[in-house]
Amino acid sequence: MSLYWSEVAKSLTPYVPGEQPKLANLVKLNTNENPYGPSPKALAAIRRASDDDLRLYPDPDGSTLKAAIAAGFGDIEPTQIFVGNGSDEVLAHVFLALLKHERPILFPDITYSFYPVYCGLYGIDYQTVPLTGSFEIRPDDYLRANGGIIFPNPNAPTGRALPLAGIQRIVAGNPDSVVVIDEAYVDFGAESAISLVNSHPNLLVVHTLSKSRSLAGLRVGYAVGDATLIEALTRVKDSFNSYPLDRLALAGACAAIEDHEWFERNRQAVIRTRARLSGDLASIGFEVLPSAANFVFVRHPRCAAADVSRELRERSIIVRHFRLPRIEQFLRITIGTDEQCDLLLAALREILPE
Amino acid sequence: MSLYWSEVAKSLTPYVPGEQPKLANLVKLNTNENPYGPSPKALAAIRRASDDDLRLYPDPDGSTLKAAIAAGFGDIEPTQIFVGNGSDEVLAHVFLALLKHERPILFPDITYSFYPVYCGLYGIDYQTVPLTGSFEIRPDDYLRANGGIIFPNPNAPTGRALPLAGIQRIVAGNPDSVVVIDEAYVDFGAESAISLVNSHPNLLVVHTLSKSRSLAGLRVGYAVGDATLIEALTRVKDSFNSYPLDRLALAGACAAIEDHEWFERNRQAVIRTRARLSGDLASIGFEVLPSAANFVFVRHPRCAAADVSRELRERSIIVRHFRLPRIEQFLRITIGTDEQCDLLLAALREILPE
Repeated sequence: MSLYWSEVAKSLTPYVPGEQPKLANLVKLNTNENPYGPSPKALAAIRRASDDDLRLYPDPDGSTLKAAIAAGFGDIEPTQIFVGNGSDEVLAHVFLALLKHERPILFPDITYSFYPVYCGLYGIDYQTVPLTGSFEIRPDDYLRANGGIIFPNPNAPTGRALPLAGIQRIVAGNPDSVVVIDEAYVDFGAESAISLVNSHPNLLVVHTLSKSRSLAGLRVGYAVGDATLIEALTRVKDSFNSYPLDRLALAGACAAIEDHEWFERNRQAVIRTRARLSGDLASIGFEVLPSAANFVFVRHPRCAAADVSRELRERSIIVRHFRLPRIEQFLRITIGTDEQCDLLLAALREILPE
Repeated sequence: MSLYWSEVAKSLTPYVPGEQPKLANLVKLNTNENPYGPSPKALAAIRRASDDDLRLYPDPDGSTLKAAIAAGFGDIEPTQIFVGNGSDEVLAHVFLALLKHERPILFPDITYSFYPVYCGLYGIDYQTVPLTGSFEIRPDDYLRANGGIIFPNPNAPTGRALPLAGIQRIVAGNPDSVVVIDEAYVDFGAESAISLVNSHPNLLVVHTLSKSRSLAGLRVGYAVGDATLIEALTRVKDSFNSYPLDRLALAGACAAIEDHEWFERNRQAVIRTRARLSGDLASIGFEVLPSAANFVFVRHPRCAAADVSRELRERSIIVRHFRLPRIEQFLRITIGTDEQCDLLLAALREILPE
C-alpha cells in the first residue's frame, strides 16, 4: 500500500481468474473454454482485418457487430445491443450504470465471484440470497425490495439452470429494478431470457463469445435490453474508453456470430460429451449437479475435493476448486473433448479409493 | 433518462471522440492516426496468433508484453509496467486508483478533453490551470496543494512540449501527489519522463501504441512507474476486467515494440513532414504553434476556424475543430503523408481569401 493509492484502490479485493498455465500438454479443464476452435470464417475475417487499416481507430460504436448480433435474434434492434471487451467489461459497466442505487442489490450466495468485486469497485451495497439445499435459485426469494438483481443462468459454478418461467417471475415482480441475467453459458442448454426483453424494460441479458463461440482469446461480450438501458451503458462506456473493441475483435466477432452452422455443431458436441461425462462420473461415485452449462459441478462423498484436484494436477489435468463455504467439496470440471474426458476419467479411477 | 439509471449514469457528460467516417477516399486528418501502416512484423505476429488458441483466454497479466516493453527501456523492470486496452483504459484506471483523493487534481485548462470526463465518472474534484498566453504549461503553477496532477506532454491539442526540466520541477515539487505525464505523442519530438521514473516514486508515464506505432486499431496502451503505483492499477484492473488485452493485441503489440527500425523510420518521416507542413501553413498566413506531436495546431488571422473546417470537409478533407474557449479559432491538423499534406495545402489555397 502507499500514500498514493486512492481509498478505493486500498479497499479492493480483486477477482482471481482461473489460472492460465504456460505449459504445453495440459488437460486444461479449469476455465470453461470451448474444446473446439472458433469458426474458420471468424479466423478468415480476422486475417482480412489485419491486412489493412490497423493504423486507424476502430468504429467506436461497433455498429456492424451490433447489427450482426441483432439480426441473429430477429426481433431485436441494434439500439438494443451494447458491445464490450468481454462480458466482464460489459458487466462492470452494468454495475456502475444500472445497479448502483440506494438499496442493496441481490445475487445468490453461490455465484460468479466477480459480482462482489464489482460492488467493491463501485461502492455498491449487496445482499446474497442463499441457493436452496440442491443449489437452485428460488424465484420468490427475489421478490423483495432491492436496488437490482443479477445472476447467471445457468448459474456458475453450479451449472444449474432456472427455467424461463422463473426468470419471468423475478423480472415481472421487480418492475422498479433492473434484473440482469448473465447468460455466459446459456447456449449449452438453458432457455434464454432474450425472448422477454421486448416486453420487460427492466430486463438486461448479457452474453459472451468466450464459451459457445470459442473466442475467449478475442474478448467480446454484449448485452441485450431496452434501448434506454443500453443508452446508460453507452454513457458509461463513452466516459471510460471510446474504443473498447479493436478492429480484429469486431471483425472476428461479426463472422463468428454469422456462422450459425459452426456454432450449432460445436455446442451440440459439448452437450453430448457432457451427458456422457456426467454419467461416467456418477458411475464412479460422484454426485453430479444437473448441468446446462459447458462444465459440471461434482463432489465425491469419500474424497476431499482439494485432494482430488491436487492429484489430478500431478497428472497434468487442471480443474477448478473454490475454497468457499458450501461448495468446498465440489470441483468444477469444464467439458473438454471426448479424449480429454477419457483422460480425466482414467485419472480419477486411479485417484479414487477402491 | 430512466428510473433504472444510476445517479452516475445520469450525471455523465461523455467524451466525444473524433469521428470515424465510413467513407472511402477521405483525407482523414482529424484523429492523429499515423499515415504509415504498422510494422509488418506486428501483422505477421497477429496472423500467427490468430492461427491457434483463440479459444483460450489470453494471459491476464500480459507478462510477455510487459517484458518486451521493459526491455525496450533498458533500466525498467516488468513490475514497473501496466498494460491496458488503449491508453484511454489505462488512464481511466489511473484516475480511479491514483488520482481520487480529497483534494482536487490539477490539469491545464486546454488539454485532452477526456480528463474532466474521467473525473465525472469517478467523482473526482478538479481545478484547471490556465496555459500561458502562448499556450505553454508553466511548471510553477503546479506547485500548490493538490490531489494529483495530469497533463499530456506534448500537450493536446496544442502540440507544445514542456522540456524535461519542467516536468522534473513539477514531480519533485509534489512529493505527496502522483504526477501523471500522458506521453501519447512523445515519440514525435518531446523528451520522455521515463528517465525520471526510477528516481521519483510519484511519477507515472502513460504511452500508447496508437500513434507512433501505427496501431490505433489494436487498442494497446501502457503505464510506466514505480512498482507500487503499478500495483494499485493492477488491483483496479483485476476488479474490472481480468483480460483487457486479447491474444491478437498482445502478440501484435509485442512485435511492434520490438521492431525498432520500423518505428524509427516512420516517426522520422512524420517529423519531416510536420516541418514542411508547418512552413507551408505559415507561408499562407497561418499561425502555427510549435509542435512536438504528430499534428499541428493552427489559426488564421482572417478566417474563422469553423468555416475553414467546413470548407475542407466539402473537399473530403477532415480536420478537428474544438468549439472550446480560447481555442475556438484553432484547427488541429494531423500530419498525413506528404501527398495528403499537399492536398490539404491546395484546398486551403482555394479556401483562404486572396
